[in-house]
Amino acid sequence: METPILDAILLRLRAALERDDLAGAASIIAGLRAPDQANVFADLGDRDQRALLPELTPETSADILEKLDEAEVAELVADLSTQTLIEIVDEMEPDEAADLLGDLAPHQAEAVLAGLDDPDEVRPLLLHPDDSAGGLMTSDYLALRRHMTAADAIRAIREWQPETESIYYLFVVDARGKLCGVVSLRQLVVADPATLIATIMDPDVISVTVGVDQEECARLMSHYDLLALPVVDTDNVLVGVVTIDDVVDVLVEEATEDIQRFGGASPLERSYLDSSVQWVMRKRISWLVLLFVTDSLTGTVLRHFEDELATVVALSFFVPLLIGTGGNSGSQTTSTIIRALAVGDVRLGDGLKALWHETRVGFLLGAAMGVLGLIRALTWGSSIELSVTVGVTLLTIILWANILGSLLPLVATRLRIDPTVVSGPVMSTLVDVTGLYIYFSLARIIMGL
Amino acid sequence: METPILDAILLRLRAALERDDLAGAASIIAGLRAPDQANVFADLGDRDQRALLPELTPETSADILEKLDEAEVAELVADLSTQTLIEIVDEMEPDEAADLLGDLAPHQAEAVLAGLDDPDEVRPLLLHPDDSAGGLMTSDYLALRRHMTAADAIRAIREWQPETESIYYLFVVDARGKLCGVVSLRQLVVADPATLIATIMDPDVISVTVGVDQEECARLMSHYDLLALPVVDTDNVLVGVVTIDDVVDVLVEEATEDIQRFGGASPLERSYLDSSVQWVMRKRISWLVLLFVTDSLTGTVLRHFEDELATVVALSFFVPLLIGTGGNSGSQTTSTIIRALAVGDVRLGDGLKALWHETRVGFLLGAAMGVLGLIRALTWGSSIELSVTVGVTLLTIILWANILGSLLPLVATRLRIDPTVVSGPVMSTLVDVTGLYIYFSLARIIMGL
Repeated sequence: METPILDAILLRLRAALERDDLAGAASIIAGLRAPDQANVFADLGDRDQRALLPELTPETSADILEKLDEAEVAELVADLSTQTLIEIVDEMEPDEAADLLGDLAPHQAEAVLAGLDDPDEVRPLLLHPDDSAGGLMTSDYLALRRHMTAADAIRAIREWQPETESIYYLFVVDARGKLCGVVSLRQLVVADPATLIATIMDPDVISVTVGVDQEECARLMSHYDLLALPVVDTDNVLVGVVTIDDVVDVLVEEATEDIQRFGGASPLERSYLDSSVQWVMRKRISWLVLLFVTDSLTGTVLRHFEDELATVVALSFFVPLLIGTGGNSGSQTTSTIIRALAVGDVRLGDGLKALWHETRVGFLLGAAMGVLGLIRALTWGSSIELSVTVGVTLLTIILWANILGSLLPLVATRLRIDPTVVSGPVMSTLVDVTGLYIYFSLARIIMGL
Repeated sequence: METPILDAILLRLRAALERDDLAGAASIIAGLRAPDQANVFADLGDRDQRALLPELTPETSADILEKLDEAEVAELVADLSTQTLIEIVDEMEPDEAADLLGDLAPHQAEAVLAGLDDPDEVRPLLLHPDDSAGGLMTSDYLALRRHMTAADAIRAIREWQPETESIYYLFVVDARGKLCGVVSLRQLVVADPATLIATIMDPDVISVTVGVDQEECARLMSHYDLLALPVVDTDNVLVGVVTIDDVVDVLVEEATEDIQRFGGASPLERSYLDSSVQWVMRKRISWLVLLFVTDSLTGTVLRHFEDELATVVALSFFVPLLIGTGGNSGSQTTSTIIRALAVGDVRLGDGLKALWHETRVGFLLGAAMGVLGLIRALTWGSSIELSVTVGVTLLTIILWANILGSLLPLVATRLRIDPTVVSGPVMSTLVDVTGLYIYFSLARIIMGL
């Protein structure tokens, strides 16, 4: 829905809440599409949210809670009675229900689970981390058998009366529940009703085991254009299905985390304007302090060259420019390499190739910028020795930044550290310290200080 | 398929190509899944690709060309005969065919178009930019009418024999082709065969017009969990359908571009290891030069305060640390705000709210880091006046960086400039120049220079 319309609805909703008309507010919410219900609800204050939630139908509450950020949900449901919670969780998709139960206190989760219509649908999902295939999958799927006909399969779907759109791929299992094929609803509908599933199914089905990371699931589904991905245990027994809508959410969420880490902060884990000032600060200060301590080494390097600085004050004029350019060049490299690793353009085995690529790019960029720096220094009236120092430093610093910028993400990935943590600010800080050392060492040699 | 298996296949393929066994190489490719075919093909050298392409069946060539980067496709097809191109394009999805035709020389595109089995399916798609809903949509869809029954609809699907999975949502139009509802294949299958479409369709259908940006399409489909999004003209006449697989590709592509811009480089537009050193350099040098010229102003500021620097050399020890910390803090802010704008957490109307949020965060972070800086300077044996200057500068610089870091992306978005261009390196460079001015001005006042 268009933003201005939602804003108008929000105004009406706030007015209803102000005059304590909870039933009126609930009916305004009930008239919206599920994702818009969540948006409007999220814009309300904490107190209004708590007052309104018990007034909504369990279906609406379930839709809203499925869309809100985890941290907000945990705060909201803390106030609800176990009975209300049971009614809401009964309306949720099994994978979302499992996520919510995972956020409750263990005894409360157990009480809610015991009261559900079908606890066995949710219980197995609780065993897996939220960010694994097991945590992402739903247990709400229909498995077919090879000896069924297309007509049998369609009859089974009619009887099941699924409410989700997760039925577009149907997975075929053998007598022991092992995954042996996939057939799409399109194929079932198009096929002659008497056709055996065994003859139309594709036996070469792509699947993941429960422990596989959600990013890998997203990569597979995006690479193979899949709408659903079957999840199996170590015996190849089908235990769940990951659907495309969950994977789209994963892609958006992971991109947000990557970009926040790129800026040198820990991921916020909740939507921005709902994050308190203290929360945002907490997510940033540790990085800022760490980088501050590292960057303090620049002071140590400068003190080390105090005599040179006192003799030629003009040396200090170029300090921010040189380390800034090195940092920029390093950031360009890390961001390229990290993304190439993430989308699979570069694999770890290609590490040396990427390093060699960046070394050559660094040399060319460094040479070009070195000439530019030399000219800039000369036109500023610096001595020829100082100008040459600036030029050679630019060449060296950019070459070095490109090598460092490709090496660090590769090493981080090898050590199974998220490579985004060595990007952006970390990169500039490292180049600050090492770049200064390069500059003054070259000054000593070239200017004979 | 697992990477080691693909690597082994690549070795066999290269061996076949080395002994000029093109037929053998083609049959190795034919045995793979379409996305893997493209991966393996992309890993070959330019010469091998050109030799192999004419040996593949048109279906396989079409699958491979659909998955390769645009720039690579343009180079490859330049060598093919018009007849071969016609056979390949006939096998492509209409939206992919239109993208490929858009990359050909106009006369060649016209020749290929004239030879296609169904040029009218592709021709209208050529009118729209690649990155709009019109460029993303396919014209290969089935429109239903209100008076049809569920059985009629399923019969129509059987007759159509669609090869794509884009049939999971079917759109309903009136006599003039205007979009009036949506029904899912699930609903059709589950419904009683005699049910009228009009009674099961959802008349409240979310659609976009042809000119809408692809990022907005992705946002809508991700927000409303849609598998397909209908595209209409200004009269609400249905002209195409955007499917989820294309949107997943858009999400991956846009995240790549954002991250590369974040690092201060223009997007590469092709996969990393396939980009030549010269190409990578071209994408980076203009930003590097622009930032270099801007960063040169730091030299101007430092020369302006030459006397102060000559009097207290120790002032220069803190320069990299202060501007580095300011830059880091600014990067944290821009990355958060840009991402919040992209996912819709912050709308332009919330601009003042976001600015106020960041001002408070900046003040708290600045105060904390200021105290830390004061202590660090004192323990280094700096004078009390210099230490106080360092502390106050940190507070001021971080506050300023947070204000600048939230203001710039908001202003850029308002001016319809991609906000990622004012992130990362641009932010650090701006803070370098202004931060130095803040530092020396405060030094003059506090230290009485």
